[in-house]
Amino acid sequence: MYDSVGLEVLSRQECLELLGASSIGRLVFTDRALPMVHPVVFALDGESVVLRVPEGSATLVARDTIVAFEIDEIEKDLSRGWSVMAVGHVTEVDDEASLERLRALPLASRPHGRVDHYLVVELEVLTGRRIP
Amino acid sequence: MYDSVGLEVLSRQECLELLGASSIGRLVFTDRALPMVHPVVFALDGESVVLRVPEGSATLVARDTIVAFEIDEIEKDLSRGWSVMAVGHVTEVDDEASLERLRALPLASRPHGRVDHYLVVELEVLTGRRIP
Repeated sequence: MYDSVGLEVLSRQECLELLGASSIGRLVFTDRALPMVHPVVFALDGESVVLRVPEGSATLVARDTIVAFEIDEIEKDLSRGWSVMAVGHVTEVDDEASLERLRALPLASRPHGRVDHYLVVELEVLTGRRIP
Repeated sequence: MYDSVGLEVLSRQECLELLGASSIGRLVFTDRALPMVHPVVFALDGESVVLRVPEGSATLVARDTIVAFEIDEIEKDLSRGWSVMAVGHVTEVDDEASLERLRALPLASRPHGRVDHYLVVELEVLTGRRIP
């Protein structure tokens, strides 16, 4: 299936597979009424995306809002490429049993001497495109 | 200078140089009250970003709004990386003299048999971070 500009439309399953094979994405949120986008480290966890965010990060204003999340890999000459975009609610996980499980996910971090927050983005809308 | 999570803060000049050396970014906008993010082909033109968008693209709803625009290059292990984010107004260029100039910019396109639109994002806010 192709969209209105001739790109191949990916299935939800294909989108999940691409998310499962990636580890850096971009979180899109609103900060003081302005659109914001920050790169984030993430891991796919079932049908959610888990973000590891250090205390003090501006990304934390996305808690309890609806965000977009995006990954892509596109050649400069557009000879090949794909992108996946999700929209969903963000919640912070703060109960110790769940945190223990999330800390075992492959989530890279830089040493920063701060508490890490774990945010979960539900993949309520999940769409993807590939250059055919 | 470093930010609250220990990332190096880039100057406006460094952000412009990274934009000038890149050609695929992500446009962040709002569509029916939901946050959206789409990969886009772009070229830096002075202190603006020019996008080439085919007729029929969902990106066109960003016309005459305030958007965010992002580029990044980040290693999976966070050993090195940088990102640049801009916020500004989007306008479509549709006078023939300006279009002629913009068509000469290095903006890749896939053959699609449609009219191309040229959108200009003013870089009103421009920030960047680098892993030190």
